[in-house]
Amino acid sequence: MVKRKTLKEDPCPVARGLDVVGDHWSLLIVRDAFDGVRRFSAFQKNLGVARNILSDRLHKLVDHGVLAVSPASDGTAYGEYVLTAKGLALFPLLVSLRQWSEQFLYREGEAHSTLVLQDTGEPVPPLRLLDKQGRALAAADTVVRKLKEVGMKEELA
Amino acid sequence: MVKRKTLKEDPCPVARGLDVVGDHWSLLIVRDAFDGVRRFSAFQKNLGVARNILSDRLHKLVDHGVLAVSPASDGTAYGEYVLTAKGLALFPLLVSLRQWSEQFLYREGEAHSTLVLQDTGEPVPPLRLLDKQGRALAAADTVVRKLKEVGMKEELA
Repeated sequence: MVKRKTLKEDPCPVARGLDVVGDHWSLLIVRDAFDGVRRFSAFQKNLGVARNILSDRLHKLVDHGVLAVSPASDGTAYGEYVLTAKGLALFPLLVSLRQWSEQFLYREGEAHSTLVLQDTGEPVPPLRLLDKQGRALAAADTVVRKLKEVGMKEELA
Repeated sequence: MVKRKTLKEDPCPVARGLDVVGDHWSLLIVRDAFDGVRRFSAFQKNLGVARNILSDRLHKLVDHGVLAVSPASDGTAYGEYVLTAKGLALFPLLVSLRQWSEQFLYREGEAHSTLVLQDTGEPVPPLRLLDKQGRALAAADTVVRKLKEVGMKEELA
């Protein structure tokens, strides 16, 4: 499993992040958790995933601190999976995936679930990357400073 | 391959999006494309991925219209892979993944590549989901309206 190890220790945050959530079952579990799903059986029913795969992904998400196991809210012996602060912080990632998909993967007029504001029911506006002055940033306005360059800059500073 | 088919036709945009980019190699390829990588050999060198897997993922990304093949910029016979508008629109997704990872997956002071502004070299600010009035939205401020409810609302309207 050299590949996974490499991503886990990768100096690129995109790669390292994918080590944790770069698996579609993991992100679907996180999505369901945002929708209020907490029980193993409910995840299983929603996702239609094999129990062993679901069990593996839930454990991995707990190990990574994205989900935590808490006592059942109804006092039964079943544990419930709830998003931690680290898990809740995945919200912009899910929103960006949803909005990209809505824009490009549905035919004109094709129905899909929508993310709306609790209080007004209005659609959530597009997520935009802004600079400090509130101007929209495109990819071309940015550049990735690789680790080596960071080191050089630091040495020069 | 029932599972993939289900995601491809899923009424949830998160699931449908994962059918296209819910594979860590695909997103690493897209990341490299944003960094200016265009050649098969360069992707292969950067990612250390087996040629058959790389070939499969590149074809899939071209089929999905995320990448397009264009003639080599140096006039040689090799094709180059470039991001389409649909591919460029994945920028917020990569930024959100990067920023989440930077916040939660690195030890204090651990070095990593950083995303900075081209013109000033300043770090790109955190991506935030804002409502129309510019107020930050948390997951708890939103709710997913599932397809059935959408249908019902539409029937009622």
